[in-house]
Amino acid sequence: MSHEVLEFDQVSQGLLEKAERDGVETIWDRKAAMKAPCGFGEKGICCKNCSMGPCRISPVAGKGAQRGLCGATADTIVARNFARSVAGGAAAHSDHARDISHVLYMACENGNYKVRDVNKLMKIAGEWGIETAGKDTYEITRELAEKALQEFGKPFGTQNFLSRAPKQRQKIWKELNIEPRAIDREITTIMHSTHIGCASDPESILEIAMRAALADGWGGSMIGTEFSDILYGVPTARGTEANLGVIEENMVNILLHGHDPSLSEMIVLAAEDPELVQLARDVGAEGINLVGMCCTGNEVTMRHGVKIAGNFYQQELAVLTGAMEAVIVDVQCIFPALARLSDCYHTKFISTSPKAKIEGSIYIEFAEEHALETAKKIVREAVVNYKNRDRSKVLIPENKSKAIVGYSVETIIGHLDKVVNSHTDVFNTVKPLSDVIWAGVLRGAAGVVGCNNPRVKHDKSHVTVIKELIKNDIIVVATGCAAQAAAKAGLLTMEAKELCGRGLKEVCERVGIPPVLHMGSCVDISRILDLVSRVAKERGIDISDLPVVGVAPEWMSEKAVSIGTYVVASGIDTFLGVTPHVTGSARFTDILTNTIENKVGAKFFFEEYPQACAQKIIDRIEEKREKLGI
Amino acid sequence: MSHEVLEFDQVSQGLLEKAERDGVETIWDRKAAMKAPCGFGEKGICCKNCSMGPCRISPVAGKGAQRGLCGATADTIVARNFARSVAGGAAAHSDHARDISHVLYMACENGNYKVRDVNKLMKIAGEWGIETAGKDTYEITRELAEKALQEFGKPFGTQNFLSRAPKQRQKIWKELNIEPRAIDREITTIMHSTHIGCASDPESILEIAMRAALADGWGGSMIGTEFSDILYGVPTARGTEANLGVIEENMVNILLHGHDPSLSEMIVLAAEDPELVQLARDVGAEGINLVGMCCTGNEVTMRHGVKIAGNFYQQELAVLTGAMEAVIVDVQCIFPALARLSDCYHTKFISTSPKAKIEGSIYIEFAEEHALETAKKIVREAVVNYKNRDRSKVLIPENKSKAIVGYSVETIIGHLDKVVNSHTDVFNTVKPLSDVIWAGVLRGAAGVVGCNNPRVKHDKSHVTVIKELIKNDIIVVATGCAAQAAAKAGLLTMEAKELCGRGLKEVCERVGIPPVLHMGSCVDISRILDLVSRVAKERGIDISDLPVVGVAPEWMSEKAVSIGTYVVASGIDTFLGVTPHVTGSARFTDILTNTIENKVGAKFFFEEYPQACAQKIIDRIEEKREKLGI
Repeated sequence: MSHEVLEFDQVSQGLLEKAERDGVETIWDRKAAMKAPCGFGEKGICCKNCSMGPCRISPVAGKGAQRGLCGATADTIVARNFARSVAGGAAAHSDHARDISHVLYMACENGNYKVRDVNKLMKIAGEWGIETAGKDTYEITRELAEKALQEFGKPFGTQNFLSRAPKQRQKIWKELNIEPRAIDREITTIMHSTHIGCASDPESILEIAMRAALADGWGGSMIGTEFSDILYGVPTARGTEANLGVIEENMVNILLHGHDPSLSEMIVLAAEDPELVQLARDVGAEGINLVGMCCTGNEVTMRHGVKIAGNFYQQELAVLTGAMEAVIVDVQCIFPALARLSDCYHTKFISTSPKAKIEGSIYIEFAEEHALETAKKIVREAVVNYKNRDRSKVLIPENKSKAIVGYSVETIIGHLDKVVNSHTDVFNTVKPLSDVIWAGVLRGAAGVVGCNNPRVKHDKSHVTVIKELIKNDIIVVATGCAAQAAAKAGLLTMEAKELCGRGLKEVCERVGIPPVLHMGSCVDISRILDLVSRVAKERGIDISDLPVVGVAPEWMSEKAVSIGTYVVASGIDTFLGVTPHVTGSARFTDILTNTIENKVGAKFFFEEYPQACAQKIIDRIEEKREKLGI
Repeated sequence: MSHEVLEFDQVSQGLLEKAERDGVETIWDRKAAMKAPCGFGEKGICCKNCSMGPCRISPVAGKGAQRGLCGATADTIVARNFARSVAGGAAAHSDHARDISHVLYMACENGNYKVRDVNKLMKIAGEWGIETAGKDTYEITRELAEKALQEFGKPFGTQNFLSRAPKQRQKIWKELNIEPRAIDREITTIMHSTHIGCASDPESILEIAMRAALADGWGGSMIGTEFSDILYGVPTARGTEANLGVIEENMVNILLHGHDPSLSEMIVLAAEDPELVQLARDVGAEGINLVGMCCTGNEVTMRHGVKIAGNFYQQELAVLTGAMEAVIVDVQCIFPALARLSDCYHTKFISTSPKAKIEGSIYIEFAEEHALETAKKIVREAVVNYKNRDRSKVLIPENKSKAIVGYSVETIIGHLDKVVNSHTDVFNTVKPLSDVIWAGVLRGAAGVVGCNNPRVKHDKSHVTVIKELIKNDIIVVATGCAAQAAAKAGLLTMEAKELCGRGLKEVCERVGIPPVLHMGSCVDISRILDLVSRVAKERGIDISDLPVVGVAPEWMSEKAVSIGTYVVASGIDTFLGVTPHVTGSARFTDILTNTIENKVGAKFFFEEYPQACAQKIIDRIEEKREKLGI
């Protein structure tokens, strides 16, 4: 077994050597076995959308098949595949949001799920035109939740949250006919339009994809975020630690992995249950140590400071430590490989969602009706498993970094209020942020988001891009696995100001924030949309006028394709560190990286080298500043 | 340019020689250029659901990559790909049905769209629990349409039409948790569950796929059919002709191709407009000759006797005749190749749906609000184009066959009523049909459906299977391109009784029907579901007990995957003449062709040789009879 040398991630290196000793397989092995990826697939010129094929378009113009059997060109095939990726990603986010809405619908005074943030409830009820006067909290809750559930399937009208965008942006969407209607409908429309013999025009396919992506960003994801806040509280800044070193040698370790906070919130509660804590002591542990991974990790760290074991690429490593009593998962980004791997250790791999039954896992269905009860049952499984841990197989890396997390829009504004001149300015706005950008103290802002991907070195692109940006006075907001990479690299600390340019350093000091703000999970990119919309509206301009960008240095999932598409369609340039499977169509590539700007005022940049990517971001931000005359 | 010899289809042969002379490209050329299809894709073991890959599983066990980078096995990858095909197919049917529901919603006394069948309106309003007493027709219509639109996105409850199935069948669905909820939601759930890191268990993935497929069969497709009947009338038996010979040398020829009757019904109306007919005469033609293709062809032939130019595989041939003034399309199964091809002739290729913009076509958006007006505009385009026809380029094959079409369930029952013993039996039931099956006069029934596919010889499998079945006293109901193949082969005639076994021949004579009943378009497979449900309920048994099968000898589209899946999930064995892309997983193949029967009482059969397929059908039907003791 030979592995690529991981100069960058020494944590992984140690555990991979252990994997070799233990004779277990990891993604590094699978990558070695996979050899070269299919050239057609990588270029997006393979079509499996009907059974006349599969068809493959020759990448050499004029040589071999230039059209599929139906006559679809590379342009059509690439566009269709891209759109279906958006459908997959939008579906994942939205189905997550539907579950949250359903939990809100079932919330009640004495139930497992309660309204924790009445302010946010009232605010959104107001936005959505729900009469609140004289109504009981849970009456309003139910009405709002029902309205949210309608967002997925209402036969008429467009997404409620679109009204949060600047008027100019709304106008663009209207004129392009990409104002998203019901979320599930937009996903269905993509699947229909990309069916054999439907849309072939790549421009129109991309428009259909943009509409569904916007249904994700301003629909599913925004509902997911906002309604989670109502149920579980708006995140506030708090300290935590990140990396595999947060796993504790003498505690019952439980890894929370997946996406939906409705599961993880209950596990957090269950893990604090005195009876279970006592049980942990009874079995010889010092207590229960919850650690998080991927977006569920982000959700619970943002709201409870639960430590972050790592990001997507480290899920197998957490098990490899030999000190993990249970891995509890719900949906999305969970390696099916965890089942085989857990079998090689004492780890209980517990899946919980009917939407994501994983072969070889212990399936304990998590139904909201019995949420806490089930959560306790799951935690108990982990606790009693402590005695099965084989101490000779334990290797916990020491690495961990301190981090501050929890920067919701509300929390950011709360921090900004500290620097408001109370004589001349009003509180509770983003004006101080826009002021420092306009003043040039900050050059701009970047949302660094997305996954890990074996096509690039683990975390290297994330960290390299972020460091370069903050050095150049570009403030970074981060979510998802990118935020966790930043956390592990120590960039979510006050001390990280030393890595910043003079302007950003000063802002960090005055406002009391790290230069990289952890804004949450992947659905929480909607928080970033909210933030940029507020800044744009505050200035009376469109989002696309702002010196802000999106960056996904190591993305891999279809959710990221949907996100990238809605971010661009929202007017924010998006830089991808992994080139999507579109290069088989020079034309579609040109649409994404060039001409789409004529429609939505933003475009994609594909740049695999993080240094070069950062430079392009800086250039683009300066270009935007110039246009604004600032 | 060398083509496979088409012993079977001489019509095509002549035109393909013309194509060579004219120097134009057809699917036969593209198939030759495509060479061998990708072995991974054909086996379904290629995964493009995230951007870590594409991943390919080695088809040789124990050699090469046996798992994708995330750890997904061939079983998981095959199941996911299969489920996504179902999503594509269910989306296509359902989105079609949504449009029909929307048209019904807009129907009014003096509008372009009216209620043509008040009986059916009232019947379905009753089924769906809509109060009709004292209400105006269009009040009921609007209420029903609104309720139908909710079927796509309602947050609670399952599909209304499930109650049409026998109680035993409903119980199976309930126990398996595959009762379909809102249609779009089921499609979204598939897309979510097949996203990276969600479901990996092939059994559960198939259950999720079955639920979405049932949302198609008993939801989208059934709504599509029933609501079309309300708007455009329940089809009744009528004569027509089929094959390219229906194109007229001295008339303005217009090809209707696609799926949604809301477009084609208006074109039919427009083509009868005296002013446009006069215009056709003025430009030197004898009149306007509408001809149909694919499912739109089926819709208009069922309701108006519009002649059938051919099926899926002949769409290019219709243009190749050089006598086609316009090809008018909406959605699904339209070769993008028609654009290039039409350019080589005078043919105007007119696309009309925002869901299916086709590059190189003339786009005239068809909005229900201005339906007739737009239809007239389109027909006018065709008429004035007559003068541009180059007579030296015209070659119309002489082949055409007479056919009787229009066998809705209501029409079939109407025919059965003729043989009811009015002293002992009641009218308006399917009892006479079940009686002849129980008596053994008919051994059983087969629904022969589906597309054409270049992987098999055009129409050969359809016709071979049908002939073999009717010879063995198995009555055939047909839809889609299969029905058109039967029409062209002269099997939809009274004379075809001579090809039948003694029992079926007698039934044809006594009831006055052909041995093959044209039941409509692909969404009209819901008529078949309705028919078999009635027979099962009449006998007090489940659908899976009946000696009936589904057959798709030449299927190619994702719609067919969805159909096959809902037909099996409805308890009807389904025989596929083209093997789906699942063989890379021996286990998933075994689930589909074997163990799924334990869950739903039916399974798939893959059999590419039509003779062998027919024999297996006969055996299976006899097996079912034996179990019933008949």
